[in-house]
Amino acid sequence: MRTALFQSSGHPGSVAENLTALDDAAARAAAAGATLLVTSELFLTGYAVGDDLGRLAEPADGDAADAVAETAGRHGLAVAYGYPERAGGTVYNSVQLVAPDGTRLANYRKTHLYGCFEHDHFTPGADTVVQAELNGLTVGLVICYDVEFPENVRAHALAGTDLLLAPTALLHPYQFVAESVVPVRAFESQLYIAYVNRAGREGAFEFVGLSALAGPDGLVRARAGRGEELLLADADPVLLAASREDNPYLRDRRPGLYRSLV
Amino acid sequence: MRTALFQSSGHPGSVAENLTALDDAAARAAAAGATLLVTSELFLTGYAVGDDLGRLAEPADGDAADAVAETAGRHGLAVAYGYPERAGGTVYNSVQLVAPDGTRLANYRKTHLYGCFEHDHFTPGADTVVQAELNGLTVGLVICYDVEFPENVRAHALAGTDLLLAPTALLHPYQFVAESVVPVRAFESQLYIAYVNRAGREGAFEFVGLSALAGPDGLVRARAGRGEELLLADADPVLLAASREDNPYLRDRRPGLYRSLV
Repeated sequence: MRTALFQSSGHPGSVAENLTALDDAAARAAAAGATLLVTSELFLTGYAVGDDLGRLAEPADGDAADAVAETAGRHGLAVAYGYPERAGGTVYNSVQLVAPDGTRLANYRKTHLYGCFEHDHFTPGADTVVQAELNGLTVGLVICYDVEFPENVRAHALAGTDLLLAPTALLHPYQFVAESVVPVRAFESQLYIAYVNRAGREGAFEFVGLSALAGPDGLVRARAGRGEELLLADADPVLLAASREDNPYLRDRRPGLYRSLV
Repeated sequence: MRTALFQSSGHPGSVAENLTALDDAAARAAAAGATLLVTSELFLTGYAVGDDLGRLAEPADGDAADAVAETAGRHGLAVAYGYPERAGGTVYNSVQLVAPDGTRLANYRKTHLYGCFEHDHFTPGADTVVQAELNGLTVGLVICYDVEFPENVRAHALAGTDLLLAPTALLHPYQFVAESVVPVRAFESQLYIAYVNRAGREGAFEFVGLSALAGPDGLVRARAGRGEELLLADADPVLLAASREDNPYLRDRRPGLYRSLV
């Protein structure tokens, strides 16, 4: 499945401009043969927009979701986008997966919030594994810091995730996460990971880009630089099945020995 | 704590020659200021020695253990060595840590056996976390394939391991484990890992060397080549404490979300 990783910080603070940028990226992704487009964390609103996160937050079925559904339908590809989600009086840091026909397939609320900024603005989610079927692959959703915990990716692998989408907002100087942790996660849990970062400076934050699609063999299929970029790479079910045959990590686990982890 | 990583396959099949080689390495390690010497997996007997593994296996307090205790005492440093352990009618793939005064501090039996060869010759161990205190650090023991499972290293971190010793027998073409998985394990669980491989060809097996001491910042303090080598590097408790302060992985875990792992 050809996947487009939209490494961009968009226009922080302007949902309208970000929806336009998303539509433009979807057009380019579809023209390049992609059937799935993935944005960075909180792409819809921007990340370092302070209390605007709460003001701009929308329900999972709000106006922005409708606009994304239109974009998906217009270009005939699925879209996973990061946004602040309002649910009653609560705001989550979420990612939603929308099918090419506009159906909302899955919505995930970040379970592992990072640092004071996120704890000040969001409530952590309560569900580790959120998935949907797409083009014969089981697609899972995590966000940024979540993927740094091997437990989260393992839980996805055990639940059958083939392609894990990870919108992120990775900061300088944590390049090691993009460069090393992400490929190791894909290898140790035998799945693909699409890790999609923001780029450039935004307020006090400096995002490092380096988005990547990592495969179950630990190889990076495509790697972005530091700037805005639409990265294309394939998640190949045949390679995935062969890799799982060769690397029996999931079969060789001994769950009875891991009780201290829970 | 200066640690010596003895990357060597020794003399497969000859315990006597391997005890001599170990004593020689201990002399060189002590002269270089090391207070701990770590061998590769099954260093005492060789790895690809087929049914000799059973014939050469000894109890944890057998003659070879006495000889290693003498080496430790003679050179004034602790020794962790890999050996096939006989316990009644059972043979384990083990590593034993001996103090500079010859005391047997800890004995670990590999819990995650790799492939048909190991399953044919060994019984898997039943205890995930085996530790001992050494020079103010909590030292933990794993063997080879164990370290490739994030659950095992996490269990050590949660139990307070500061320096994880991992005698190994890593084969071509799995260099990715030495080069990427080991540093990521050290980073994600905030501890040091001394990963000590065999080197060169032995029967049908080709070991890739690349032993390393990886730190909690993900940086490799020292990295061996492909051949026999005595590698020296430091595990620094001050750096470890500072890194744990900066990287709150262990504090930010949400154990209640990981139940599917056990």
